[in-house]
Amino acid sequence: MSDADSRIQLIPLGGFGEIGKNMLAVKYEDTIIVIDCGLMFPEEELLGIDVVIPDISYLVENKEKVKAILLTHGHEDHVGALPYVLKEINVPVYGSRLTVGIVEGKLKEHNINNADLRVVRPREKVSTGPIETEFFRVSHSIPDCMGVAINTPLGIVLHTGDIKLDQTPVDGQVVDFRKLAEYGEKGVLAMLGDSTNADRTGFTMSEKVVGNTFEELFGKCSGRIIVTTFASNVHRIQQVVTNAEKYGRKVAVVGRSMVNNVKIAKELGYINISEDVLIEMEDIKKYPPNKVVIITTGSQGEPMSALTRMATADHRWVVLQPGDTVIISATPIPGNEKLVARTVDLLFRQGAEVIYEKGIGVHVSGHSAQEELKILINLIRPKYFIPVHGEYRHLMKHAKLAESLGIPPSKIFVAENGQVIEIGRKKATFNGKVAAGKVLVDGLGVGDVGNIVLRDRKQLSQDGIMIVVVTINKDNNEVVAGPDIVTRGFVYVRESEQLIEDAKEKAKEALDICYKKNLTEWAVIKAQVRDKLGKHLYEKTGRRPMILPIIMEV
Amino acid sequence: MSDADSRIQLIPLGGFGEIGKNMLAVKYEDTIIVIDCGLMFPEEELLGIDVVIPDISYLVENKEKVKAILLTHGHEDHVGALPYVLKEINVPVYGSRLTVGIVEGKLKEHNINNADLRVVRPREKVSTGPIETEFFRVSHSIPDCMGVAINTPLGIVLHTGDIKLDQTPVDGQVVDFRKLAEYGEKGVLAMLGDSTNADRTGFTMSEKVVGNTFEELFGKCSGRIIVTTFASNVHRIQQVVTNAEKYGRKVAVVGRSMVNNVKIAKELGYINISEDVLIEMEDIKKYPPNKVVIITTGSQGEPMSALTRMATADHRWVVLQPGDTVIISATPIPGNEKLVARTVDLLFRQGAEVIYEKGIGVHVSGHSAQEELKILINLIRPKYFIPVHGEYRHLMKHAKLAESLGIPPSKIFVAENGQVIEIGRKKATFNGKVAAGKVLVDGLGVGDVGNIVLRDRKQLSQDGIMIVVVTINKDNNEVVAGPDIVTRGFVYVRESEQLIEDAKEKAKEALDICYKKNLTEWAVIKAQVRDKLGKHLYEKTGRRPMILPIIMEV
Repeated sequence: MSDADSRIQLIPLGGFGEIGKNMLAVKYEDTIIVIDCGLMFPEEELLGIDVVIPDISYLVENKEKVKAILLTHGHEDHVGALPYVLKEINVPVYGSRLTVGIVEGKLKEHNINNADLRVVRPREKVSTGPIETEFFRVSHSIPDCMGVAINTPLGIVLHTGDIKLDQTPVDGQVVDFRKLAEYGEKGVLAMLGDSTNADRTGFTMSEKVVGNTFEELFGKCSGRIIVTTFASNVHRIQQVVTNAEKYGRKVAVVGRSMVNNVKIAKELGYINISEDVLIEMEDIKKYPPNKVVIITTGSQGEPMSALTRMATADHRWVVLQPGDTVIISATPIPGNEKLVARTVDLLFRQGAEVIYEKGIGVHVSGHSAQEELKILINLIRPKYFIPVHGEYRHLMKHAKLAESLGIPPSKIFVAENGQVIEIGRKKATFNGKVAAGKVLVDGLGVGDVGNIVLRDRKQLSQDGIMIVVVTINKDNNEVVAGPDIVTRGFVYVRESEQLIEDAKEKAKEALDICYKKNLTEWAVIKAQVRDKLGKHLYEKTGRRPMILPIIMEV
Repeated sequence: MSDADSRIQLIPLGGFGEIGKNMLAVKYEDTIIVIDCGLMFPEEELLGIDVVIPDISYLVENKEKVKAILLTHGHEDHVGALPYVLKEINVPVYGSRLTVGIVEGKLKEHNINNADLRVVRPREKVSTGPIETEFFRVSHSIPDCMGVAINTPLGIVLHTGDIKLDQTPVDGQVVDFRKLAEYGEKGVLAMLGDSTNADRTGFTMSEKVVGNTFEELFGKCSGRIIVTTFASNVHRIQQVVTNAEKYGRKVAVVGRSMVNNVKIAKELGYINISEDVLIEMEDIKKYPPNKVVIITTGSQGEPMSALTRMATADHRWVVLQPGDTVIISATPIPGNEKLVARTVDLLFRQGAEVIYEKGIGVHVSGHSAQEELKILINLIRPKYFIPVHGEYRHLMKHAKLAESLGIPPSKIFVAENGQVIEIGRKKATFNGKVAAGKVLVDGLGVGDVGNIVLRDRKQLSQDGIMIVVVTINKDNNEVVAGPDIVTRGFVYVRESEQLIEDAKEKAKEALDICYKKNLTEWAVIKAQVRDKLGKHLYEKTGRRPMILPIIMEV
């Protein structure tokens, strides 16, 4: 293929029209590189599902072309699917030192030992066939985040990663504005921009604001202070530690993922805690309340988390007492609002004071709001603009923002997972679709739970099940035992004996009809039973349990 | 009992430590009056439950003492349980004209014809034995709301109802500050105050603000305008209508509850729409897009609502088109966030512009924020203060607010449902508990779904069910048919034949062991099967379906 005919394909495999499981394949000629490899936590209606990962059949089909996976940062929605994906496609994985550190831990848990993980630094370049990628520093809600600029013979594809324009980040690592400006000046062919907060006006507050709030709150508290936040928010944890030191308090770290993350961050130098400040959980009680800060998991109200166990008076080492102050330094992820609210209520019931209100500076977002997004677009002024990382409304709001800055609508592509964007020398267009979607992980099974199973789970969850078992003589189709009825999740049987007896009668009637009419086809008999019984139960109870007739032959 | 020994008992039956199903019994000597009679929509984990109503066993046990039900306003969480409660206790029900109008419609749907509904106006007094109640005007997010002041020989118990201090309400009916001041001056024994927004700083904006936003938005739109809000928010609807008229647009009302509510509100004079402005749904297409406003249900993303059907291109009369603007004039009720977000995404996908962002003035709350709550407490300065209508954290925040205004902590009672507060001439104390809690309504069943059924539904929803049926000879316990295996919601059977075959083998093994050991007790055999199979399945799949062995005898 001559260079003039070359095309860049941007193939969204996750994170386009959804928040989570971010994954984008960039193809140029025979080279595919993949940006991020995230998972998603299931929505409520995916009953029983543990996690959701992207459908990577496109990558598997083009396995020999896939040369690298580039990670922008260490959040689950950017690295969480790696253990599943590397089993199918084992290519070099590039990421910052912290990102690689987090991934190493994750792969170990999944018993994957053959991964080729490579640490890169900001402004470092990685060559993959005709593509050269440069990483650049961005700030977000986990340290050591980077965006990527993919240099192809056709031009530069620039992906912001998750980004906020924090002017006073805790580690001093400001977004590499000069590098972005340099690319802007050079000319960027296509820009992919984080849309998570594209529907929020103004600026996202700096992480430092939370530090200031902590300082003020810590100064006022005379009892123990318990802070919960995302375990990956190392800078938030740093700010807790810094203020604890300032007020002469020791720090105990509680909750498995918090302990792990603090350990990794400490080892890699992303957090600064002097040894004499850290104490063990079991030693908390050795210190007076005004000398202790506890950092814990549970900011999302997760039922098994340390904070939830404290809230239910079920934590071995931390028994809440009046005078304790709990600071919820996080925002509920959509869908977790109720769990968090319940945890707050339980904490109050234990006698603790709880600081959780919105807008009081105990939490800030890690994503750019509209004014920041405008700055980014104006700094880069790409030829084509593609909003990424957002539900459809976020992508649309981001697209409109770009439009308001003068990017022509025809050069803005709001894509959803699977929709291929093809960029040539002269123009860019949508060009076909590849397989993309949700692969459901339930226990050890990856992709073996589909719509039928979920539909059944849904029905079972609403009205339960009624099983009708009957044994018939295979020679003459006569009923020799049953029908027996067993129900679960339908009614409390002891209080509804008559209902069950009546149901048995109805089933018997249906079977009699079949016998008299000489209907011997099992499917027909079952349909009769289901139909008769279903109508009867709905009339009596207003419910529609799953009715499952089982016929045994002797 | 001499007057000196008399006590007032405040008996919270709902809405204390929760948002919803508000109900408070006030007892003085042999007279009980009940304030509000609400329902609650079930939380996610109440699988299959339709609505939740208060446990009224206390009222039923004291039936002859219950003299009246007083309604503060017509929202579901204040009147929704009436159809269930009146079946048990048919006493006079007092409420404003609109409230009674709404209740009438509700009772008709439930085929209740013998209710004694009595319309009262603000400042009207109702005598019930030794108690005299005066109603007073308050503003909220439905018209014709009132609070109640219960005059007992011991003093006044004042209940704010749901309240906001709207200085410019759409109907001009400002909170009756003078009446509140009069009571304050006279001396209020106990005040019960709406805590819903007690964790929000500042003031709640006036309903008029939304009207101004509408005016601005309507002025900018050149296509159709579709506004969704709560069907009961008559003033919001009025503001849509007013602005439609202003810009020469016709108004179509869509969605069953919206049509009903507009009808009641029009009949009773709570809404002002000239006949030539209203058009029928089927006539929408006769008008150019810039001459139409559609008011619709669906502000909570309810799956069957009109707006959701428009969003899925499934509405008979309203087919969305580019140029349409949808205004979501509501906030998601906690738990509905995802449904609303999904609807917004779908609307964007239909090509509509959607205005849904927070803080841009398309919605305001109907409850007082902290500054308003402070005004109320300072106006009334009760002897005892009892926060109501809120989850525990809201009650606590409201209690702290009262404390910050100088009400002594010993005179503030944070109660939960069932906790009786007893107020005497000299002091007030908690005094025992009465039955209170959730009664679950599922289909036609009231209270017949309990923890066991819900636990089963939960398990079924997570990993499904595996049924193992076996027929044995009752004389010698030999297996004559089966074991057969049927699963639902566990795995997709066609793709997991081997798994099912193996499971059958495992069940057979368990049965063999029982047979050989001569274990004939069914419970023992079933436990064996469950145990063997459960372990096997967990090992193979990481899942724990409900295992249900069924033994048939021939």
